[in-house]
Amino acid sequence: MKKRIAVGVLAATGAVGQRFVQLLADHPWFEVVAVTGSERTVGRPYGEGVKWVIPGDPPPSVAGLIVQDTQPDLDVQVLFSALPTKKAREMEPVFAEAGYAVITNASAYRMAEHVPLLIPEINPDHTQVIATQQAKRNWSGFIVASPNCSTTSAVLPMKVFQDAFGLEAAIMTTMQAISGAGYPGVPSLAILDNVIPYIGGEDEKLEAEPKKLLGSVETGTIRLADIRLSAQANRVPVIDGHLASVSVKLSRKASPAEAIEALESWQPPAICVQLPTSPNRPLIYRHENDRPQPKLDRDSEDGLAWSVGKVRDCDVLDLRYLSITHNTLRGAASGSILNAELLVVQGCIQ
Amino acid sequence: MKKRIAVGVLAATGAVGQRFVQLLADHPWFEVVAVTGSERTVGRPYGEGVKWVIPGDPPPSVAGLIVQDTQPDLDVQVLFSALPTKKAREMEPVFAEAGYAVITNASAYRMAEHVPLLIPEINPDHTQVIATQQAKRNWSGFIVASPNCSTTSAVLPMKVFQDAFGLEAAIMTTMQAISGAGYPGVPSLAILDNVIPYIGGEDEKLEAEPKKLLGSVETGTIRLADIRLSAQANRVPVIDGHLASVSVKLSRKASPAEAIEALESWQPPAICVQLPTSPNRPLIYRHENDRPQPKLDRDSEDGLAWSVGKVRDCDVLDLRYLSITHNTLRGAASGSILNAELLVVQGCIQ
Amino acid sequence: MKKRIAVGVLAATGAVGQRFVQLLADHPWFEVVAVTGSERTVGRPYGEGVKWVIPGDPPPSVAGLIVQDTQPDLDVQVLFSALPTKKAREMEPVFAEAGYAVITNASAYRMAEHVPLLIPEINPDHTQVIATQQAKRNWSGFIVASPNCSTTSAVLPMKVFQDAFGLEAAIMTTMQAISGAGYPGVPSLAILDNVIPYIGGEDEKLEAEPKKLLGSVETGTIRLADIRLSAQANRVPVIDGHLASVSVKLSRKASPAEAIEALESWQPPAICVQLPTSPNRPLIYRHENDRPQPKLDRDSEDGLAWSVGKVRDCDVLDLRYLSITHNTLRGAASGSILNAELLVVQGCIQ
Amino acid sequence: MKKRIAVGVLAATGAVGQRFVQLLADHPWFEVVAVTGSERTVGRPYGEGVKWVIPGDPPPSVAGLIVQDTQPDLDVQVLFSALPTKKAREMEPVFAEAGYAVITNASAYRMAEHVPLLIPEINPDHTQVIATQQAKRNWSGFIVASPNCSTTSAVLPMKVFQDAFGLEAAIMTTMQAISGAGYPGVPSLAILDNVIPYIGGEDEKLEAEPKKLLGSVETGTIRLADIRLSAQANRVPVIDGHLASVSVKLSRKASPAEAIEALESWQPPAICVQLPTSPNRPLIYRHENDRPQPKLDRDSEDGLAWSVGKVRDCDVLDLRYLSITHNTLRGAASGSILNAELLVVQGCIQ
Repeated sequence: MKKRIAVGVLAATGAVGQRFVQLLADHPWFEVVAVTGSERTVGRPYGEGVKWVIPGDPPPSVAGLIVQDTQPDLDVQVLFSALPTKKAREMEPVFAEAGYAVITNASAYRMAEHVPLLIPEINPDHTQVIATQQAKRNWSGFIVASPNCSTTSAVLPMKVFQDAFGLEAAIMTTMQAISGAGYPGVPSLAILDNVIPYIGGEDEKLEAEPKKLLGSVETGTIRLADIRLSAQANRVPVIDGHLASVSVKLSRKASPAEAIEALESWQPPAICVQLPTSPNRPLIYRHENDRPQPKLDRDSEDGLAWSVGKVRDCDVLDLRYLSITHNTLRGAASGSILNAELLVVQGCIQ
Repeated sequence: MKKRIAVGVLAATGAVGQRFVQLLADHPWFEVVAVTGSERTVGRPYGEGVKWVIPGDPPPSVAGLIVQDTQPDLDVQVLFSALPTKKAREMEPVFAEAGYAVITNASAYRMAEHVPLLIPEINPDHTQVIATQQAKRNWSGFIVASPNCSTTSAVLPMKVFQDAFGLEAAIMTTMQAISGAGYPGVPSLAILDNVIPYIGGEDEKLEAEPKKLLGSVETGTIRLADIRLSAQANRVPVIDGHLASVSVKLSRKASPAEAIEALESWQPPAICVQLPTSPNRPLIYRHENDRPQPKLDRDSEDGLAWSVGKVRDCDVLDLRYLSITHNTLRGAASGSILNAELLVVQGCIQ
Repeated sequence: MKKRIAVGVLAATGAVGQRFVQLLADHPWFEVVAVTGSERTVGRPYGEGVKWVIPGDPPPSVAGLIVQDTQPDLDVQVLFSALPTKKAREMEPVFAEAGYAVITNASAYRMAEHVPLLIPEINPDHTQVIATQQAKRNWSGFIVASPNCSTTSAVLPMKVFQDAFGLEAAIMTTMQAISGAGYPGVPSLAILDNVIPYIGGEDEKLEAEPKKLLGSVETGTIRLADIRLSAQANRVPVIDGHLASVSVKLSRKASPAEAIEALESWQPPAICVQLPTSPNRPLIYRHENDRPQPKLDRDSEDGLAWSVGKVRDCDVLDLRYLSITHNTLRGAASGSILNAELLVVQGCIQ
Repeated sequence: MKKRIAVGVLAATGAVGQRFVQLLADHPWFEVVAVTGSERTVGRPYGEGVKWVIPGDPPPSVAGLIVQDTQPDLDVQVLFSALPTKKAREMEPVFAEAGYAVITNASAYRMAEHVPLLIPEINPDHTQVIATQQAKRNWSGFIVASPNCSTTSAVLPMKVFQDAFGLEAAIMTTMQAISGAGYPGVPSLAILDNVIPYIGGEDEKLEAEPKKLLGSVETGTIRLADIRLSAQANRVPVIDGHLASVSVKLSRKASPAEAIEALESWQPPAICVQLPTSPNRPLIYRHENDRPQPKLDRDSEDGLAWSVGKVRDCDVLDLRYLSITHNTLRGAASGSILNAELLVVQGCIQ
């Protein structure tokens, strides 16, 4: 077994950071050797400083690491960032400038020019713009971002339909899990027996990010896809798993049967097979009339699959469908790890 | 105080029937003197036979009534029907033929020709077709239906927009409470920590009933409105209150500000003021960005108000909005009671 | 109608403070004319500064009041305190010294000597020690405390059994609602699909406060009852209503039938009938084998009743029972209002 | 790899039966070759007939099996029974008489004389009475039962304390998951935002079964332990994991520190190490003051561990503690599989 790549996790003590730590504990290519955290935890062993909020316990291999400050003196080349937005906005460029490869789950630079907004199954070629990113900003490192967890849940069928029929517009209503808000996140008094039809900034992300994910690379720049989008994000009393209810307008009409055929015959880009975390079946079409469901489908393929169902005619646009992903796995930590794996295979990370 | 009108409740032992019994207990115009129930309960005092599933206790005035079989030998002229669909399909015409005024919450005859699908705030004039209903079928009684609880939640803003701007299409995604499924209804194991994107027949009702509610009466017949509709109904872990997320296409463009103005200046038909159950404010526009919410808004105006919010531009159609009503009150029992009150004022019930 | 007594609410912007404001809006004896709040809200109209977290809207009569700092320059004689513990510890004596009658829901002085821990139905005579409290501390005002909401839920049957059979010991396991933790309180990610067997300080309160409530006044001092207590408090995913599961050891054996008879024949002290908020039936014994339940029983008598059930033999001690009260009404705001009413009737408040 | 033992699952289409099927799919010793089900499903392939209610999908190895009637003509020697109580009472003796080894999860014969009520970690020697069972009833097969899932959650610490200090009495209050009621089980309308303080027959099982589990075998018969028990079972809105809050009276006083030491140093009987499903750490003591929690601890050791915590002084009896197990794994299907493994090692199953 070859030596693993030393990596660090920024904001490792938060909820998303914990997921990174947990998922990377047994990773074949990466080894967590540095963790950063809030002032309260800096200088303490991770296992003591962290308030662990996900099932299980902190992995022993990381529990003993001393939590460091979030400064560019970490002895690694690759960083997984779970920084909160404001801190990410401030520090991620500092790390990129200092030569680190920053694989981020934060929203700060998702829509920034020349920062790939990346899902290996959708747009692995977008990493081409990293060179432009570095040249324009005079950085030796770079930033690669994962999309918002709600964007992720909705977007793969859009990609399939875009390729097969052309995609002109999408109206999305999401039902999103509380884990998407982190910890402490949503007060129980606010969400038990309730739906909260507001998640700060989420509608805007849902209406912007798919255009970048479904865009194309032209001369070192990402050209946004020309798709009209409309979104309403809702928080529901579900622990994990974002469900998107989507109606789409296609460039050429397709029947539900054709659309289902397109989904079921879809294959991810060939490079995905080389990524160790890559699921066997990234897209699972459920034929039952009451699927996909967050509780039953979020954990498919270790939380890395899109479960899609109920493709039907839409009497207003063209087609309706439902799509679910696990928001803290596919939609956050695991998605970023897949991105890092892709960067290794593409030679952007050594 | 004048003598109250004697009424009966069909299927009074079920969840909706219990609501009828509870709400009618202190009604100024109606007095429950007959209740029917399942074979198990027939012949027993209501208070003993019923398995009470809503807060509080059976009202003493009804608890002592002997549960009767659901047959047209009840000593009243007015019936509130909470019959299950199949039984409603069989028995409601029998009652109508026998001269009873059947105010039903069941779905069996909602879309039947010449049966008014009625919400007093929306289409009180549709009761004109009762005469045609009686003439065509040779009935001395009649059937008047309430719409599905999910239709109700979405439809009032449609009406306002139809009147103000013309309405061409609507895409609806609903998040519906478990009480809509009655008792025992949805298994807890199915819905806790979950969303179920399927409610049998609900999408079809959402795509059909608004056309009738928003239709017009022409020569004794209801002409369906020419609106394209697309619906996805979802069950969420909420006890009461259906939330509809809707995008609409208008005949003439309107800004969110104009649409909000239309909602806030809307007045119900003048006749509504004569109905004792009629809410002071049937339509409440919430300006907060996280409202309406089922838990906070379902009980407004004793569960009889539509709480509407988040009117915004939709980049695909024209406008988006959210609307909530209490599904077992406005959307079921209270709605039917309002219908009965309207029929009294219009002279269809003596 | 005579003039109402002007009162203030300390920490009126918090969850308990909101309840005070809501409940006092239409009170026949009290009128809220002063509200205090956090630094963020001081100087703003209450209706703007408050982040309203309970159903409904801020009452108009209070919405316009300017939020004041929590300092003893309020133009009232009577204060309802919803202060957090630390602030209560600091400020309540300051107010008492300055001549205010402080009716508090905070825990800071519940067990303090000569501070009545008061439930009108249980120990209205304990207000006798107010004189001692004032004399010992040289205060012109005084503090009267309400017990913890979990203590309240368990204690009334103890009182009844103490009077009827003598009470030697009680083992309590509570299942407590999330509203008991205020807002934001318990994170949804912590409690959804979970039980948290820990509420800070709660076991200690449950093991101390009943001794004071069930104690006796001797020469101006409260003598604690000699009862052994053992408690385990648990947080459950319930919005309102604390359920206590209790086993008791009696001084003389009693059958379940005798115990139920004692509960059903119990009458509150005569003075309670003079209190306007006093429920008609403070103790409701439920004979169903699956009652009391938080959802079905918490709102009985406007949230002021104890619902008790399942009195059975305990093969280890003597008897088991279950008891529920609404934690933010009977167990908090309404309980304190009842205490204030008692103080008016007893002449301690003018 | 040696040939696996062919086994059947009775009532394989129900919720517990599905767990058996899922857990046995990759079992090193057992292979499911026969499944029985309700009349509706008999004759159909299992994968089609079953309404799968647990995460994942039916295992392919079983999906193709034709569902058979529950009659003693199954071509296996070993049966896992997930039969409902009534059917179990009728059919399990028929199977035992016909020579089958019936490892049951049903309650029908748990307390029957000479039927071992078995948890390998607690009383593996109780299988000695199988010989008596067969002799007395003239059976060639036999029945071995698993205890109720709530009994299981509470009982291991009792065993440890019994061995270390002697055990005289226990007062138990349980908070039990909805999955314990099977599917459809508890209506969501009954349990969301609620606690139901009643589970049919559960208190009686909790007050009887520990006496048998903690009893001793004397001359081919199980002698019940002389322990006084008192139980109150509650249903809470938790999906999986039963939490027991217990106070115990010991024969000789022990401090919490001694009790925790006894728990942490406890080792399961030596034979357990030979059982492939046996967890590495069957008893995990949690030192945090807010553990164990159903959501965080139920899955420890693949759902086979007891997570115990909060051992404290009880001022009424001697000690209090909390204990959790996963009710459908340790408390049901996995527990029965462990029992079968034990029977293989002991030579009772070939």
